[in-house]
Amino acid sequence: MRIALCGGTGDLGAGLALRLTRDTDHEVLVGSRDPEKARERATEYERELDGRDVEGEIKGFDNAMATDRADVAVLCVPAYHLADTIDAIEDGLDDTIVVTPAVGMRREDGTMHYNPPSAGSVSALAAAAAPDGVPVVGAFHNLAAGRLADLDASLDWDVLVVGDDTDAKATVGSLADGIDGMRALDAGPLAAAPAVESLTPLLINVAANNDALADLGVSFH
Amino acid sequence: MRIALCGGTGDLGAGLALRLTRDTDHEVLVGSRDPEKARERATEYERELDGRDVEGEIKGFDNAMATDRADVAVLCVPAYHLADTIDAIEDGLDDTIVVTPAVGMRREDGTMHYNPPSAGSVSALAAAAAPDGVPVVGAFHNLAAGRLADLDASLDWDVLVVGDDTDAKATVGSLADGIDGMRALDAGPLAAAPAVESLTPLLINVAANNDALADLGVSFH
Repeated sequence: MRIALCGGTGDLGAGLALRLTRDTDHEVLVGSRDPEKARERATEYERELDGRDVEGEIKGFDNAMATDRADVAVLCVPAYHLADTIDAIEDGLDDTIVVTPAVGMRREDGTMHYNPPSAGSVSALAAAAAPDGVPVVGAFHNLAAGRLADLDASLDWDVLVVGDDTDAKATVGSLADGIDGMRALDAGPLAAAPAVESLTPLLINVAANNDALADLGVSFH
Repeated sequence: MRIALCGGTGDLGAGLALRLTRDTDHEVLVGSRDPEKARERATEYERELDGRDVEGEIKGFDNAMATDRADVAVLCVPAYHLADTIDAIEDGLDDTIVVTPAVGMRREDGTMHYNPPSAGSVSALAAAAAPDGVPVVGAFHNLAAGRLADLDASLDWDVLVVGDDTDAKATVGSLADGIDGMRALDAGPLAAAPAVESLTPLLINVAANNDALADLGVSFH
């Protein structure tokens, strides 16, 4: 498949681009509002992989063009840019699955709290902003992005997937399962997204309060 | 230490009573509103352990009497019985740490959702109901109780501990660390309890949606 990583120039985009290219046969397109920045980062990702003797072409485009070419568009943007980003790419969303990894959080007295938008969850916000008929799947919320982007780091993390479209959810699950050290788990319908998104502030709090731990993910067993 | 398990006649109480007695030197007191039921269950727990060649005396009392004798009182009761239970035991809470494992949840269209009380979390509700000066610690929220009560089951689970009293939190953490296959993690102050309590509906949703998984706990790494 072709995977567009909209806003894919940050750590989450880097981690998904590098690991999808290294571990799977999917083609990765890096998207950004600024196509020049997208091309630069795509070249950096290729160079990083080349240094590890991994062949793979990664192209950069503006977000709309990346999405137009893609089967799956992962919106690697903060929650407050989600609606804008969907507006920018919506003409290219025919036959494309939208994946939203964003989480709303606020910090108070040094502790992170889940802070969902009025739609109930960021995933629900994305579903409301997407054109009718475009499947929206929540996934990749609970990954420490810095560690994800470090190809020397092993993961052993579960990826929780929520959505109302069973086929789309299975497709996104197969993406996650294709990455070494990731296991996709079905966490239910979009309505279950708050329980998934809430895990991210918990991971941050646990890492902050336990000296031996950092850059956490989670596994269920 | 002496550990009172108030409402300790259900699965969570059974699991903690059996495993604390098997794996640690702590003395377990089973509490119930009905002291006769507490004594019966305590005898059953002793018999279960005896069948595994584990020696250990477990006594049963009404909740107030169990708490009066205890250094730590774990309130193994549903969230809606928490305030009543604290009322019943409050005279025995001098020099006792209160531990609250309860979570508020609601089921809607087959999906579990976190449903905190107006205090913000069940842990905050317990802190508000406890007498001034009694430390309240949230812990043992995210354990599949049936598996916990099955001594043939191995766990490898993390126990998230929240609280505002550092010493009390460390004491409760050491209790969890003493159980084979449990690791205590500091998840922050009581204000961080919603992120911890939210994990329980997530565990239930993940178990419900993935055929290969049941009776889940979680680990952070």
